Amino acid sequence: MNPGCKKYIPFQPQKIVGRTWPDKVITKAPVWCSVDLRDGNQALVDPMNMEEKLEYFHTLLDIGIKEIEIGFPSASETDYEICRELIEGGHIPDDVTIQVLVQAREHLIKKTFEAIRGAKHVILHFYNSTSTLQRKVVFHMDTDGITKIATDAADLIYEMAQPLIQEGMDLRFEYSPESFMGTEMDYAVEICQAVLERLHATPENKVILNLPTTVENCMPNQFADMLEYFCKKIPSRDSAIISLHPHNDRGCGVATAEMGLLAGAERVEATLFGNGERTGNVDIVTLAMNMYTQGIDPKLDFSNINKIREMYERCTKMPVGDRQPYVGKLVFTAFSGSHQDAINKGTQYMKESNSDYWEIPYLPIDPADVGREYEPVIRINSQSGKGGAAYIMEHNFGFDLPKAMHPDFGAVVQKETDAVGKEISPERIFELFQQEYIEAKEPYKLLKHAFAENIDSEGHSHVAFWGTLQHTDTIFKVSGEGNGPIDAFFNAIKDEKMSHFTFLDYSSHAITDGSDSQGVAYILLQDQRTGQKYWGVGLSHNINLAPLRAILSAINRSKRS
Amino acid sequence: MNPGCKKYIPFQPQKIVGRTWPDKVITKAPVWCSVDLRDGNQALVDPMNMEEKLEYFHTLLDIGIKEIEIGFPSASETDYEICRELIEGGHIPDDVTIQVLVQAREHLIKKTFEAIRGAKHVILHFYNSTSTLQRKVVFHMDTDGITKIATDAADLIYEMAQPLIQEGMDLRFEYSPESFMGTEMDYAVEICQAVLERLHATPENKVILNLPTTVENCMPNQFADMLEYFCKKIPSRDSAIISLHPHNDRGCGVATAEMGLLAGAERVEATLFGNGERTGNVDIVTLAMNMYTQGIDPKLDFSNINKIREMYERCTKMPVGDRQPYVGKLVFTAFSGSHQDAINKGTQYMKESNSDYWEIPYLPIDPADVGREYEPVIRINSQSGKGGAAYIMEHNFGFDLPKAMHPDFGAVVQKETDAVGKEISPERIFELFQQEYIEAKEPYKLLKHAFAENIDSEGHSHVAFWGTLQHTDTIFKVSGEGNGPIDAFFNAIKDEKMSHFTFLDYSSHAITDGSDSQGVAYILLQDQRTGQKYWGVGLSHNINLAPLRAILSAINRSKRS
Repeated sequence: MNPGCKKYIPFQPQKIVGRTWPDKVITKAPVWCSVDLRDGNQALVDPMNMEEKLEYFHTLLDIGIKEIEIGFPSASETDYEICRELIEGGHIPDDVTIQVLVQAREHLIKKTFEAIRGAKHVILHFYNSTSTLQRKVVFHMDTDGITKIATDAADLIYEMAQPLIQEGMDLRFEYSPESFMGTEMDYAVEICQAVLERLHATPENKVILNLPTTVENCMPNQFADMLEYFCKKIPSRDSAIISLHPHNDRGCGVATAEMGLLAGAERVEATLFGNGERTGNVDIVTLAMNMYTQGIDPKLDFSNINKIREMYERCTKMPVGDRQPYVGKLVFTAFSGSHQDAINKGTQYMKESNSDYWEIPYLPIDPADVGREYEPVIRINSQSGKGGAAYIMEHNFGFDLPKAMHPDFGAVVQKETDAVGKEISPERIFELFQQEYIEAKEPYKLLKHAFAENIDSEGHSHVAFWGTLQHTDTIFKVSGEGNGPIDAFFNAIKDEKMSHFTFLDYSSHAITDGSDSQGVAYILLQDQRTGQKYWGVGLSHNINLAPLRAILSAINRSKRS
Repeated sequence: MNPGCKKYIPFQPQKIVGRTWPDKVITKAPVWCSVDLRDGNQALVDPMNMEEKLEYFHTLLDIGIKEIEIGFPSASETDYEICRELIEGGHIPDDVTIQVLVQAREHLIKKTFEAIRGAKHVILHFYNSTSTLQRKVVFHMDTDGITKIATDAADLIYEMAQPLIQEGMDLRFEYSPESFMGTEMDYAVEICQAVLERLHATPENKVILNLPTTVENCMPNQFADMLEYFCKKIPSRDSAIISLHPHNDRGCGVATAEMGLLAGAERVEATLFGNGERTGNVDIVTLAMNMYTQGIDPKLDFSNINKIREMYERCTKMPVGDRQPYVGKLVFTAFSGSHQDAINKGTQYMKESNSDYWEIPYLPIDPADVGREYEPVIRINSQSGKGGAAYIMEHNFGFDLPKAMHPDFGAVVQKETDAVGKEISPERIFELFQQEYIEAKEPYKLLKHAFAENIDSEGHSHVAFWGTLQHTDTIFKVSGEGNGPIDAFFNAIKDEKMSHFTFLDYSSHAITDGSDSQGVAYILLQDQRTGQKYWGVGLSHNINLAPLRAILSAINRSKRS
C-alpha cells in the first residue's frame, strides 16, 4: 500500500499564535440549524416525497429546532413545491425560521425569492466555492473572480430583499464560502468580509457566516486553529454569527463541531443521526446529548429517541447503526461480565446512597433520559459473567440472588452459552434457573408436613416439625424440633441419610410476578464429607414452605453431581 | 429536557502548562493492535464461533496487523479453545504477536498462562479499574487497595513469566488502568509507575501501558491534555510504550486516537469498522486511511475493502453503515448536482494535466485505492443536475455529450426524477437518452441514400447526396451538394420544409459498447423562426450515417414540442 499514499497532498495547518481554544470548555448550547431536509435529503438514494418531508419537518419542530433549512427550491421542482406547501399550508410556527439554499447565481436567486414569498421568518443562504482546489479545477478563476461571484450575488440578494423586508418579512442572510476547509484563511476572511459589507451587516443585523467542512480534510484541532484565526482576523466579527457545517469524511464531525464551538462558533448546522452527503453531516443527537451528559441543557428534546428514530428510518430509508451513540440498539447493552458486574453495583449504589448524580460505570447516560428505560441493558452470551446472569434474574424476574450464589448460577449459564455459541434470552436464563434449582425435586420430595409452634414466657420460639418424605420409591416420616421452622425441618431430616449436610446460609424475599406474590428462599448447604457446597432454591406462596423446598433442592442437587 | 441534565457531573479537565500537542502533526503510523477478537467479539449479540474467529484472524493477518488480541482465555471455554487452536494449529506467523487479556486476579492469571503455552510471541495484557467512580461504587477501596490489586498481579505475572521466557518465549507485558479517562492523572501515573517497577520494565524491555477511554467521557482535546500530562509525569517514560484504546461513546473515538498520538502515544488498539462494546472501539480503517490521505503510509493494506467488509459482516452479523468513512456504500457517491459537476471537472482536469496528485473535489480519496473503482460515484435523483447525467452517459455508456448539450439532457432527466421521486438507474438514464434523441424517428425518416465524393486538384472536397425520405405517409426524394457529407445532406433537405433550420454545432466520436464499435453524432440546429435550439443524436456503425440521423433527430424533436 506504501506508494499509493504519496499522491495525496498533506493538509497545511494554519499557523496561529496565542491559541486560546484548548483552554475553553463548552458552557452553553449553540443555535441549532437542521439541514436534514436539504443536505440530508439530497444524499438519499430516494429523496423524501412531500408527505415524508412534512412529517420530518414536524418532528424537527417537536425536537425544538428553531432554524430549519428546508431545501434548494431553485434546483428542483420537488424542493420548490415543499417550500410552497410549508408556507401556504401553515406548517411553520411563528418562532421558527425556514432557511433556503441557493448557489450564487442570478437566475437561481430569482427563483428562490419566488419560492419564499409569504413566509414570516426566512434565512436566505447562498454559497460559492472558494477552495484552492475548486478555483483551479472547477472554476478556472483567480480569487478576484471568485469574490465577484459572491459579491454580485450579495448585491442582488440585498436589493431583492428590501421590498420583502419592507413588507414585514423577517429576512436574514447566510453566506457559505463552500469548501472553507480547503481555502487559505486570509482569503476566506477577505471574501467573507466583502460579503458582510455588501449585505450591510451590522451588530444589530448580523449575517450568518457558515464555515463548512464541506469535505472533512483535516483534524478537528487544526480546524479549530483555522476558526480561531478567522474569528480574530475578520474585521466585522461583531456583525457576523459564526456557523459550522461539519461533514464526517475523516470520522471526526462531532469533534470538529465541538472544537469549532471552543474556537468561537455560535451556531451549528447538523442532521438527525448524521444523514448527509457521503459520510454524512455531523449528528445533532450526539452533539446535543454530549452536552447533556456534561450538565449543559442542549435545548433540544430527545427524550423519546426511539420514536424519532422510527420516523427517520421510515422517511429516509436509511437504517440507524446499532452502535450509533445514544440511539443505536446496542449502545446501552453490556455483554462483558465485568461491565455487567459494575453496572449492577452502580445501580445498587445509586439505590442505596440516594445520590443526586448519575454514577453508573459503563453507562455514560441514563437510558431513561432518551426514553429507553425499558430495554435490556445487560444481555448474556459466552462473554458474560456471573454478574450479568444475576442482573437478569433480578431485573427481569425479580429474583435477587444472594451475592455468594452468583458464581454458582454464573457457571450454569456459562456452560450453556459456551455450548450454544450465541446470545441466550432472559427467558432461557430463567429456564436454566428453574431446571437447575427449583425443579431439583429428585430423589427427595416432601409429600406433606405440619408445624407446631409456641413461644415461651421468655420469648423463645419452639417449633416442632412432622413431615412425610419420599426418596425415589420409599416413603418415610421424619420429625424434628428447633427454634424456627427451618431449624426444625433441618433437624428432622438430619436424622436421615442427610446428616452429613451442614447449614451455611439462608435468605428469602417476596417476588411479585404477575398478580400474586410468592416467596423465594435460597439455602446454602455444605456436604461435610467432601467439603462441596450446594445452593438450593425453593419457591412457594407459603412463606414457611419455600425454605424447606430450598433445602431439598440443595440436597437433591448434591445427588446429581 | 432542561432539568434532567443536571444529574450529570461535568468532566473536570486536567490542568496543563506548556501544552505542546496542538502544534504537532502525525508523521508516521503507530503500532497497531487489533482487539477485534476480544473487545469486538465480546460485544456481539452472537459471539463468533471457532471457524469465524479463524477466518477473521487470517483477514487481520492479510491486512498486515502484527499484534492481535485474541481473547480473554480465562473467562470462557470458547476463548480458551480459540487460543489453543491458534497456537497448536500453526495459524500464527513468526512476525505476529498474540495478545491475551486477563483481569488482575490470581486464578484467572494462572489459567491464562495455561492458555498461552507453546506460543512464540505473546503480550500478556492485564487490567484493573482505577477510576474514582469504580473505586467508589464497585470496589469500595482506596487507591492503595486498587494499586495492590495491580502490583500483586504484576508480581505474579512476572514470576510466572520467567520460566517461559527462559524456554524462549517472547513474552511481553501490557497493563491497562481501566477507566483511565475517569482516573485522577496523578494517581494514574502512580499506579502505572508501580506496575512498571514490579514488571522490571527497562528501555530494552518496555512494558505497554494501555490508557483506555473505556467510556468516552471527555472531548478529544481534553484527553490529549491528560495524556501529555501523564507522559511528562511518569518517571519511567522511556521504559513504556504508550498505547491507546479509545471507545466512541461521544462519537469522537477517531479524534481521540489522533490527538492521543499527537500527545505522545505510540500504539493504538482498534477494530475493523469500529466494532466493540456499546458504541464500539475506534475504527482502524478510518484511522489508517486518514493517515493515507495525508501521504502517510499506515502500513496496513485496505486495498480490497469490500472483501474485508464482506468477511466482517458475515462473521460478526453486524452491518457496516452506508455512511461509514471509506467503506460505506454511499461515501463515494454524489447525488448533488454541483458536487457531480465538480467531480466531473476534477476528473477531466486530472486526465488533461497528468497531475501526480489526487485533485478531485468531494472525493477525499481515490476510490480505487480501497478497491472501489467500479462502483458508481455519481447517482441520479431529483437533487442531481446536468453534470451527473452527463457523467453517467460518459462513464457507464461511453457517450461523451458536448458540454453545451448537458443542460438539454439534464432537463430531460430532471423531469423524470421529479416525477418518480426517487433515484433512477444508469440504465433508465440511458433509456431516457434513447427515447429523447436516438429514437426521435418521426415524422422524418431516411429510407435510403447514396453519396458521391470527389476531391479536386486543389484538394477541395465535393460531395453529392441523393436520398429517399419519408414524412409520415409521404415518400419523396432529395438531393444536395456540399463540401462534406453533412453539408451535402443538410443542403439536400433544406430545399424541403426544413429550410428554416440552421446548423450550429456538430461533434461525433466512436463508442465501444460490447464487441463492435459504433459512431455517435451530436448535432445542434436552430429554428430560425422561433430561435429555439434543438439537439439531435444519431447512432450508426457507418460513420457517414450517424450525423444524418442526428440531423433528423433534431428536426423530429422540434416537431414534438
